[in-house]
Amino acid sequence: MEWTDRQQRIVEIVKDSGSITGEKIAAKLDLTRATLRPDLTILTMFGVLEARPRVGYSYRENTRPSPIMERLLQLRVCSYKSMPVTILESASIYEATVAMFTQNVGSLTVVGLDRLLVGMISRKDIMKASLGKIDLQQVPVGVIMTRMPNIYMTTPDEPVYSAAKKLVQHQVDSLPVVEGYVDENGDECYEVVGRFTKTNVTKLFVEIAEARL
Amino acid sequence: MEWTDRQQRIVEIVKDSGSITGEKIAAKLDLTRATLRPDLTILTMFGVLEARPRVGYSYRENTRPSPIMERLLQLRVCSYKSMPVTILESASIYEATVAMFTQNVGSLTVVGLDRLLVGMISRKDIMKASLGKIDLQQVPVGVIMTRMPNIYMTTPDEPVYSAAKKLVQHQVDSLPVVEGYVDENGDECYEVVGRFTKTNVTKLFVEIAEARL
Repeated sequence: MEWTDRQQRIVEIVKDSGSITGEKIAAKLDLTRATLRPDLTILTMFGVLEARPRVGYSYRENTRPSPIMERLLQLRVCSYKSMPVTILESASIYEATVAMFTQNVGSLTVVGLDRLLVGMISRKDIMKASLGKIDLQQVPVGVIMTRMPNIYMTTPDEPVYSAAKKLVQHQVDSLPVVEGYVDENGDECYEVVGRFTKTNVTKLFVEIAEARL
Repeated sequence: MEWTDRQQRIVEIVKDSGSITGEKIAAKLDLTRATLRPDLTILTMFGVLEARPRVGYSYRENTRPSPIMERLLQLRVCSYKSMPVTILESASIYEATVAMFTQNVGSLTVVGLDRLLVGMISRKDIMKASLGKIDLQQVPVGVIMTRMPNIYMTTPDEPVYSAAKKLVQHQVDSLPVVEGYVDENGDECYEVVGRFTKTNVTKLFVEIAEARL
C-alpha cells in the first residue's frame, strides 16, 4: 500500500501508543482533529487502524487485501468515458459557447480539419474571454483554447483511478480520450475517441456505493 | 444490495444459463457489448458474477459483504467538503466572474447581507449571460443566479455517496453545504458552511484507489 506521509506518521504514532484518541494524534502532529479526519477514515476503512468509541485508535497487525479494491484498480477508462464533443479550431467562441449549452458539457475538444486533436476549450477559457472586450462572434476558438502539447490526455486502456488522478492533479474537469499514432512524417497524432470527466468518476463512485445498499 | 433493473436482468440471464459469454448476454438484451461492460464490471467487482476467460460469466452463490464497502457508505460530507466561497447578491456578474478566477472555483454560493443562502451562480450561468448583450459590470448576480428554493443542498452529516448522487442526478457541479434552522418568523434559514463538488468526490475516489496500490 502507498500511504501519504501524513498517513504514515499517523500509523507510527498509533503503533507507538498502543491506543490513542484522535485528539491526541492531532496534538502530536500540530493539526486540528478536522484536518486529520479524512486520513483516519481512510486508515480505518482499510483496516490498518481500528477505531473504538471512547478508547481511540489502535493498530491492526494483519490487514487482508479486499478483492473489491483490487478490481477497482483494474477498471479502465474505456468502460466509463463519455462520447467526445468536438469543435473545429476555426469556429467562433460564440459557436463554442452555444455548443457547450446544446451538448450540456463543460469543455469541448478542439480538432483540425483532419479531425485530430489540436486543443481544449473550457467554460473557464470562455469566461476569461468574456471579461475582455473581444467580439465572441469574430474570434475563433483557436485563439483562446489551451493548445497541444499542453493538453492532459487519457487513453481507453488507462485505469480509471489513474485518469481520475490526472483530473485532480492538473485541476481540469475533463480529459480527451485519445488513440495516438505516429504519421508518415514522424509526427504524433491523436484521434479523439471520447472524454473522461469528473462527472464520470462521480457516477462510478455512486454506482459502487449503491451496489452495496 | 440494490441493483439496477438491467443488472438484475443480467443476473437472471446468467443464473438461467449456468455459464454465458458477454456477447450472448448482450444479444439477449438487444444491447451492445460496450453498453453492458460497466454493469458486468460492477457485478463482477461485487462477486455476484464470476468472469472466466473464454468461458464467460457464471453466478456465484455466496457473496460476502466487504467491510471496506460498508465503511464507504458511512463517510460523511463534513470530512470531504471544501471551504465555502460566497458572494453578495448585490455584487455584479463581473465581480462574480473575477471571484471565480481568483478563488479557482466553478460556482459561488450567493448570500444576502445576513450571510444566509439565497442562491447559486455557476460558470454556465455566466456564459449564458455573456451570450446576451447585457453589461456584466452593471447587472447584479441576483438577476441571473439560480434562486432558492430551486437549490440542491447537502448537510455536513449527509453520507458522501448520497451527496454524490445529488450531483449526478441534478447535473450540478457543486452543492452548498448548509446548516438549516427555523427563525423567529418560522422561515427556513440556511447558513453556508462549505461546498461539496465533483472534485471532492474525484479526490476521494483517488485516495481510496491509491491506498490499495
